[in-house]
Amino acid sequence: MTERIFNFSAGPAVLPLSVLEHAQRELLALPGAGASILEISHRSKVFEAILQSAKKRLTELLSIPENYRILFLQGGSRLQFSMVPMNLLSADGPPADYILTGSWGKNALKEAIKAGPVRVAWDGKASNYDRLPGAGAVQLSPQAAYVHITSNETIEGVQFRTEPETGDVPLVCDSSSDFLHRPLDIARYGLLYACAQKNAGPAGVTIVIIREDLLERSQDSLPGYLNYKIHADNDSLWNTPAVFGIYIFDLIARWLLEDIGGLDKMYAQNCSKAQMLYDLIDASNGFYRGHSQSDCRSVMNVTFRLSTEELEKKFLAEAEKNGLSSLKGHRSVGGIRASIYNAMPVEGVTSLCNFMRDFASRS
Amino acid sequence: MTERIFNFSAGPAVLPLSVLEHAQRELLALPGAGASILEISHRSKVFEAILQSAKKRLTELLSIPENYRILFLQGGSRLQFSMVPMNLLSADGPPADYILTGSWGKNALKEAIKAGPVRVAWDGKASNYDRLPGAGAVQLSPQAAYVHITSNETIEGVQFRTEPETGDVPLVCDSSSDFLHRPLDIARYGLLYACAQKNAGPAGVTIVIIREDLLERSQDSLPGYLNYKIHADNDSLWNTPAVFGIYIFDLIARWLLEDIGGLDKMYAQNCSKAQMLYDLIDASNGFYRGHSQSDCRSVMNVTFRLSTEELEKKFLAEAEKNGLSSLKGHRSVGGIRASIYNAMPVEGVTSLCNFMRDFASRS
Repeated sequence: MTERIFNFSAGPAVLPLSVLEHAQRELLALPGAGASILEISHRSKVFEAILQSAKKRLTELLSIPENYRILFLQGGSRLQFSMVPMNLLSADGPPADYILTGSWGKNALKEAIKAGPVRVAWDGKASNYDRLPGAGAVQLSPQAAYVHITSNETIEGVQFRTEPETGDVPLVCDSSSDFLHRPLDIARYGLLYACAQKNAGPAGVTIVIIREDLLERSQDSLPGYLNYKIHADNDSLWNTPAVFGIYIFDLIARWLLEDIGGLDKMYAQNCSKAQMLYDLIDASNGFYRGHSQSDCRSVMNVTFRLSTEELEKKFLAEAEKNGLSSLKGHRSVGGIRASIYNAMPVEGVTSLCNFMRDFASRS
Repeated sequence: MTERIFNFSAGPAVLPLSVLEHAQRELLALPGAGASILEISHRSKVFEAILQSAKKRLTELLSIPENYRILFLQGGSRLQFSMVPMNLLSADGPPADYILTGSWGKNALKEAIKAGPVRVAWDGKASNYDRLPGAGAVQLSPQAAYVHITSNETIEGVQFRTEPETGDVPLVCDSSSDFLHRPLDIARYGLLYACAQKNAGPAGVTIVIIREDLLERSQDSLPGYLNYKIHADNDSLWNTPAVFGIYIFDLIARWLLEDIGGLDKMYAQNCSKAQMLYDLIDASNGFYRGHSQSDCRSVMNVTFRLSTEELEKKFLAEAEKNGLSSLKGHRSVGGIRASIYNAMPVEGVTSLCNFMRDFASRS
């Protein structure tokens, strides 16, 4: 086996080693199936059991109330950017309120504008998306079709600690990059979506948790694949779902429940990993400069800069040589980004911290 | 390792064992990456090389001309049923002609109707979808926006041997269930799409081959993920694609080129496998009754009935016991269906034939 490095990629991202080992063991023949998970029918009993297990474990992890449905779709968050407004907005109805705390929120807005009436309720542009809206800064409409947030912005490293209060207006959340990193009060959400390739699996499967009453907004005129109600009515089997992705998701959910011990424990680990990095940045006398304000720093994506781009290049090259991989910031903003999702071991963060201290002392 | 059975599932379906073994070997760490194919960034050099290799091998297999683009999407054929008309039709333009030779063509039509003007140019309903249109039976409009066919109908087992002549009108083909089973003259197509889970990989990746001039029909107002031009302009990396599915597709393309020796040889194998089953059916004195007319029988899905449903049940139960799995016909039509895609070994078909002869002699 080739040696594994510490992979700080923002997504697709590191997965639990025990999950990979499990998948590897049974890749030629799934127990009881006589065929690979890549080969079995999505309507077979073996896959039906996996699908139900995945839903059950996710329900347990997030304490999902009974009036919510779990869907396993394809197309990533990009497709959700369109599906959300196409299902939840109507041309002559009230607009949706979008809160923009970074690049992905802006991308979501771009698609929503094509689908129906929208309103920007807050935009962090003035401070280059380094913060969340301050108290009282967002004026939400009590009649809005929904309020959309991006719980964690991977590019800027800005993250909501708690959900904004939206009253009776459904809160819709792009939770792609921090899904399952902490417990959530699902009852506060109307709809929550996440592509899997950060905390929940390989690229190619997208998880949607939707409150049942919102399914009634889906019109028959929608393109079939884009209709939440069709997927809910068919328990994610209207078409062939991403079988392998759902299988890996189920293994990850089991890892979270049985190996980690639930999302409270996962969150404590995540906070402690992030704290190690932020403490180091804060103690570096400006050698490392964090992008986001300290009260809304992401515990998933730690973004920072060095004094020059040349120094950043050197940092990245040396890190790579030390087995610390994919630390380059998003191409739209540059800098450094350490993505430390659920499956990043503490040892990976310790290694990075040691490297950062050493690099600073030598520069 | 659990023993592998012969898997006659219509999809997801059997994959080449050597491909599964290769994927298994490097599932923990892809050579040169230090991380699993499930964990690496879609923008990493390692994945970029896989993506380009997949396109190169597909181009070689099908001799794809230079004025075509290859896209790797998600959402299966169901999403293509909507994307094709949403991109290629305009509300005030000429209708598209749909030729219906089975259930999947009808599903494609249902979505097209929502998107723009369509016309049914031929419908096999009168004979319960057991045949292709006879000579002169289809009146295509020379001004049609496109002509849509389903090259192989998995449920009925009806397959086009050659493409219908559409002159200057772009031929659009749902090739999901027979993609890569024989060489094609791509220049005869405007657009060809296929979900991977029959001959080309696991569920979750969809391949589109589109003639470049047709990309100009995609309007900016389309939902971003549904816009072919956006995907073409970004070389399938507008969003995170199904990384693992593309990796497996690349391995399958290599298997076709290097182990099988190209699509001519693959087609010869496929015809020979199908002939074994059809010869047995024809020689069974009506014990096994094929569904489709003999001149349009599918070489991918061999569908047949026995005299009673009870006997079919017995057949399926005994087959399963003999390691011949997933032979049940689609739930909408019943009966028996043996799906014998590229990766079904000749030994699987021989085993099935032996079982069928024995079963008939005992009944």
